[in-house]
Amino acid sequence: MGIQKLPKLLEDYKIDGILISSVPNIIYLTGYSGFSYLEREAFLLVTQKQKFLITDGRYKEAVSKIPGFKLIEISFKNPLDKIFENLSKKIKRLAMEEYDLSVNEYRKLKKYFLLKSLEELKNLRIIKNKDEILKIEKAARIGDLAFNFILKKIKAGVSEKKIAYELEIFIKRKGADIAFPPIVAFGRNSAIPHHKTNNEKLRTNNIVLLDFGVKLENYCSDMTRTVFFGKANDKFKKMYQTVLTAQKLTIEQLNNLTMNGKWKIRKWNIKAFDIDKIARNYIIKQGFPTIPHSLGHGIGIEVHEGPRLSPKSKDILKPSMVFSIEPGIYIPGYGGVRIEDLVVLEKNGLRLLTHSPKNLIEI
Amino acid sequence: MGIQKLPKLLEDYKIDGILISSVPNIIYLTGYSGFSYLEREAFLLVTQKQKFLITDGRYKEAVSKIPGFKLIEISFKNPLDKIFENLSKKIKRLAMEEYDLSVNEYRKLKKYFLLKSLEELKNLRIIKNKDEILKIEKAARIGDLAFNFILKKIKAGVSEKKIAYELEIFIKRKGADIAFPPIVAFGRNSAIPHHKTNNEKLRTNNIVLLDFGVKLENYCSDMTRTVFFGKANDKFKKMYQTVLTAQKLTIEQLNNLTMNGKWKIRKWNIKAFDIDKIARNYIIKQGFPTIPHSLGHGIGIEVHEGPRLSPKSKDILKPSMVFSIEPGIYIPGYGGVRIEDLVVLEKNGLRLLTHSPKNLIEI
Repeated sequence: MGIQKLPKLLEDYKIDGILISSVPNIIYLTGYSGFSYLEREAFLLVTQKQKFLITDGRYKEAVSKIPGFKLIEISFKNPLDKIFENLSKKIKRLAMEEYDLSVNEYRKLKKYFLLKSLEELKNLRIIKNKDEILKIEKAARIGDLAFNFILKKIKAGVSEKKIAYELEIFIKRKGADIAFPPIVAFGRNSAIPHHKTNNEKLRTNNIVLLDFGVKLENYCSDMTRTVFFGKANDKFKKMYQTVLTAQKLTIEQLNNLTMNGKWKIRKWNIKAFDIDKIARNYIIKQGFPTIPHSLGHGIGIEVHEGPRLSPKSKDILKPSMVFSIEPGIYIPGYGGVRIEDLVVLEKNGLRLLTHSPKNLIEI
Repeated sequence: MGIQKLPKLLEDYKIDGILISSVPNIIYLTGYSGFSYLEREAFLLVTQKQKFLITDGRYKEAVSKIPGFKLIEISFKNPLDKIFENLSKKIKRLAMEEYDLSVNEYRKLKKYFLLKSLEELKNLRIIKNKDEILKIEKAARIGDLAFNFILKKIKAGVSEKKIAYELEIFIKRKGADIAFPPIVAFGRNSAIPHHKTNNEKLRTNNIVLLDFGVKLENYCSDMTRTVFFGKANDKFKKMYQTVLTAQKLTIEQLNNLTMNGKWKIRKWNIKAFDIDKIARNYIIKQGFPTIPHSLGHGIGIEVHEGPRLSPKSKDILKPSMVFSIEPGIYIPGYGGVRIEDLVVLEKNGLRLLTHSPKNLIEI
């Protein structure tokens, strides 16, 4: 997989080793996803000649099956400090992930190594290969099925938590997992972009915002739909239409820049912040507040990874990047609308990975 | 809650502010648990006079309900750098969580502040109050119910994943959440202390190891039981009895040191590593390999937090600490046994928070 990217980095930066600490990068480089995201349980150390997996006895048997990596076991007799001291006999210049490593870990490591930060490690997974795109697509397909399923569960009196639970159960029955706790927001709760799903009960003439993702074979999907329970009024309709058009304009522009070989002329110099601007400016022009979040984010092993489509982003959009396009309007005290799809940028335009309907659904 | 511990730290260390970045500490200090563990979404900044919550627009409405904290909103116009620059006009010496803050964040912050690491922030939650203990106890009670329920599902041909799924559904039906993905390990998989539950099917005369936890009102429980599907042979029985006795000896010793006012004489000078040693040495003496993990860990908002009961631990066990006691024996290629209970240390001895049976269960 991604492991073949490392020898070139070692050479380009004239470093002796690369220390990988972030769990998503460990999954990417080993295929093993058993380590906790909440605690430091493992490191990878890659040199031109060897690849080490440093972890403790709890994982000994599990990681012994990972090909190409030599296990260094952390134990009470062979603590991490001693392991690094031994490695430092051969490794002097060591690259690390400065966005992941803690200050405390850095302090310990710098006793033994000349530490260097590599920006490349942050975006190691930004370009997807075919296999990865297929996995995201499979996850997204289950997401579409889940959306179709959940529409039938939207009834007066049902709670946000119940809908989130039903989504989760559906996804798990399909042999997948949730990529993150589903956001289910009724009524004015939908004005909170990251609303924490609660016991709020659904009443007639209320907005229903559903933002959820599926994780399958370590890869995530993400989608949002906003539907109306009751008969939508003009205020809601205008919000909905504005968000939908903002998304449509973005997709059209990305197609304009890439279809029919146009990407060749432009050499893929598509700036993420320019794309963000299309949706953002359209929403503002219609008299609504600006989107209080990015227009989109890359996705893969993590729900949020590079590229970022935001006003401050320096990312350039390239072929085989997979990201979300999710404009939204949020009116505090009233409610919100967000429509989110996943797309993959290809040489002949965008391809949607989520296919759920986007016409205004009234239930 | 814990917020009243901070002014004293500010005074003791003569610092102007404390920057809290870790999600568990944010939950502890605000009661709000909506921030992601996977990405940095918020900081708390506490001075003698003011308390700030720094987060972006997605959380604006949610956090506006947290009493006592003034919101500083991160936006494209008011990025984090600018926020810190402004705050640095009044705050010079700033404490931070060096176990949580990334190297990248540290580099940005040190442009504006004199940074100091406070060990106390790591163990801010190590002593629980009554309310916290009650929450852990409630979570543990659901765990006990789940264990009783899951025994009925253990049948030939069932998969590890199916059992994990049933545990999860049971816990969610009780209105709680799982504290971590349940570890369900059949046969030789039980020799992997942190086995990743898979599609392995249960066959007769196999070990079934179940390690799971419940999260309720932000607090976690954790328990492990090992049962036998079929008729246990002498080899397994000896392993089981050894682990059980190792746990019993530990509990007895903790009671010896604390009951009937003995803690007064000893002034609570109970070293965590001495307690770890009791179980560890007993297991080794019976001819088994040493426990490849700690004997126990504190628990609360995090599944694993202070104190640590391990050979290298410097922690002292004090009243109102809640922790696990979980000896284990693991024989690669054969299987393992672990028995884990939660206890709270009280002035008249230990009190168990998990109550599931520990006699050898054959199904």
